Amino acid sequence: MCSFRKPVYLTAGYNTISLGTGRPEFHPKKPRPSLEDYIKEAGQGVIQQISSAEHIDEGVISNFMAARFNRQGHLAALIPSIDPALRYKPCTRVEGACASGGLGLANAIKTILSDLADVVLVVGVEVQNSVKAIYGADYLAGAGHYASERKNGHAYFFPGKFADRAGAYYEKFGAESTREAMAHWYAKAIENARTCPQAQEYHNSAGDLLKLGRKAPNANGFVDHLNLFDCSKVSDGASAMICASEEGLKKLGLDKDKAVRVFGMGQAEDDLTQAPEDQTKLSTTNQAVSKAYKQAQVSHEKIGVLEVHDCFSITGILALEAAGFAEHGQAGELVKSGYTKRTGEVPTNTTGGLVGFGHYTGGTGIRQAVDICRQLTKQAGDSQVEVSSQRPYGLTISMGGNDRTVVSLVLGKDT
Amino acid sequence: MCSFRKPVYLTAGYNTISLGTGRPEFHPKKPRPSLEDYIKEAGQGVIQQISSAEHIDEGVISNFMAARFNRQGHLAALIPSIDPALRYKPCTRVEGACASGGLGLANAIKTILSDLADVVLVVGVEVQNSVKAIYGADYLAGAGHYASERKNGHAYFFPGKFADRAGAYYEKFGAESTREAMAHWYAKAIENARTCPQAQEYHNSAGDLLKLGRKAPNANGFVDHLNLFDCSKVSDGASAMICASEEGLKKLGLDKDKAVRVFGMGQAEDDLTQAPEDQTKLSTTNQAVSKAYKQAQVSHEKIGVLEVHDCFSITGILALEAAGFAEHGQAGELVKSGYTKRTGEVPTNTTGGLVGFGHYTGGTGIRQAVDICRQLTKQAGDSQVEVSSQRPYGLTISMGGNDRTVVSLVLGKDT
Repeated sequence: MCSFRKPVYLTAGYNTISLGTGRPEFHPKKPRPSLEDYIKEAGQGVIQQISSAEHIDEGVISNFMAARFNRQGHLAALIPSIDPALRYKPCTRVEGACASGGLGLANAIKTILSDLADVVLVVGVEVQNSVKAIYGADYLAGAGHYASERKNGHAYFFPGKFADRAGAYYEKFGAESTREAMAHWYAKAIENARTCPQAQEYHNSAGDLLKLGRKAPNANGFVDHLNLFDCSKVSDGASAMICASEEGLKKLGLDKDKAVRVFGMGQAEDDLTQAPEDQTKLSTTNQAVSKAYKQAQVSHEKIGVLEVHDCFSITGILALEAAGFAEHGQAGELVKSGYTKRTGEVPTNTTGGLVGFGHYTGGTGIRQAVDICRQLTKQAGDSQVEVSSQRPYGLTISMGGNDRTVVSLVLGKDT
Repeated sequence: MCSFRKPVYLTAGYNTISLGTGRPEFHPKKPRPSLEDYIKEAGQGVIQQISSAEHIDEGVISNFMAARFNRQGHLAALIPSIDPALRYKPCTRVEGACASGGLGLANAIKTILSDLADVVLVVGVEVQNSVKAIYGADYLAGAGHYASERKNGHAYFFPGKFADRAGAYYEKFGAESTREAMAHWYAKAIENARTCPQAQEYHNSAGDLLKLGRKAPNANGFVDHLNLFDCSKVSDGASAMICASEEGLKKLGLDKDKAVRVFGMGQAEDDLTQAPEDQTKLSTTNQAVSKAYKQAQVSHEKIGVLEVHDCFSITGILALEAAGFAEHGQAGELVKSGYTKRTGEVPTNTTGGLVGFGHYTGGTGIRQAVDICRQLTKQAGDSQVEVSSQRPYGLTISMGGNDRTVVSLVLGKDT
């Protein structure tokens, strides 16, 4: 894929709180914001940063499973509820399991490139605390091939899937050293979340994070090969941002200094009905990231800030390898070395990632882009890291299901 | 909206049988094709018409409610299961309730216009006979605003919504004459379905169709203001087609004579949380169709073959008014005059529409475009009608929910 036919920008991001266990506002039996509340909060949070909602030409909404968690489909028609100026504008809902957010951005980018719009509002949302986790696990199994995988899968379907990957990785590269790396991943996730008031683990005050991360897998009868600290939690929330052409930025009165340009976009799907060929590799992630690098004409050596989809700590480690930051089997050492910490060479998941920030599924891919945009434009508040001038780009990896849909973006300042 | 930045074509359509009550193959307790089977049949049905699946750059899949009917999400990752050549290609799932198919085409059109792809495979699918209709009605209520509308809505949610519209129309324009027009709509639907072997009502051999259509509303305790013959049935099936640039058609070895060009595309969403302002009008449909006409620089006077979303007979009548074929309150007379029959001035729903062909929800918008393409390129077999040379364009109206998402296309031969 050659470069885009014209520049495309992302800007004016907004993330709600990631609500779920760990947040003081959360109580399982008390009323909580609805799907519609989150869509409005995130959408209006973006609109407050632009000159007028009138300039929004189209809307995109990303969501995975409101059909089951909230019995609600037809989500595109909720976008006009954000602002009356959005009535009768074209809106689209996209879904790609946990990569729904990435798909939403890809959709908006294509719309800008089509010349049909100069400004697209992208919203990603998920409300999953509506049911108990064990029922939710059945809903989320719809991100795998339900007909063939659910019956023989773990009651907690996706933790089971990634526990299998962790087990395969332990066998190939050593359980002890891998688990130690996973504990480091957890510690980094919480340390970063403590810098971000919207993060689900913002208030986490545990003393010895590495000790928690080192807890034996399955000690609590959960799944083989993972402990609870290896897992992202159940979250409610939304993220939104603007995707615009150069002309669109002008209309919105937005400074290019506060925006990032999309230099590379890679997307790949693999066959949901087939098991991964190698449990220790994220092959679809590798395909998508490679496409994004190719389009941006960069390698991992130019990436200075990174957002990977760590639905589980092991997934974060596998993603580092798929994106070229480490050879196969070497990412654990990289993590232990501090390379991905906020003071390291490539700060990764600077607001905590899925494990630390939370994972409101349909919004996560957008939340990643919001955070990369903030880092590169120095709007990240207490989460701000130093991005090396030798590594001026940010990379997002939005992954769905068991590495079956992936959207990856190379973002950078347009100098 | 001005015209597209380059020509976009639709071609190589494929419709599966619309399976449900009325089809001899259908038995509620016997095994039936799965969601995956339909996706494969329709996708492979398209691929057999092109030089090689290798030339497909991207995939789009349209579906409304597989999450509840089939417990399956993440549908984009089922596209690679159609053909191994599709592995790692970018694929997207879109959803807009019953307009999901229209959204899929809109998404593919934008992708072609973005220059990121020359050939996009679009598949739309729905499998709804997996549950009894009364449970399915709850799932389909997710096309409305479930939180506010479901509780006080009819057990059969959408028939209830459109019965309300029918009642309002009766009150304003006369019950008897409107019901007579609805009976004519039903008769036309079945007559047209009898020309199309894939139609759900292909085997319908009832003698006096008008008599059936005239049956009193609510005679069977169903909903006020509608009888069962006013309603589309529950259907399983899929449609697929190719969306391509001029370059893409060449790669595929496809003749432009067998394709239609997209001259106009109009899309509009209205706020799902608000009730329609006037029950006797489809205001969002009007917005979308007006945009499509404007872009194509035509009026309804140039439309010679029409596909409207007649989820209920009353909806077909309202759509004719929204699309400019009749003044408000006059479409009933138009239908009774034979204007929309296959021998009339503007043959409408030539394979039966939703009432006659069937309504596999996620596929319907694509099925409409397949049928218009076949009509304009004289590939419609026994369903072929004469399209007036004074009216060289076809129009599709893909509508979701209670007129809340609409995609409309003006299609024509590229001469």
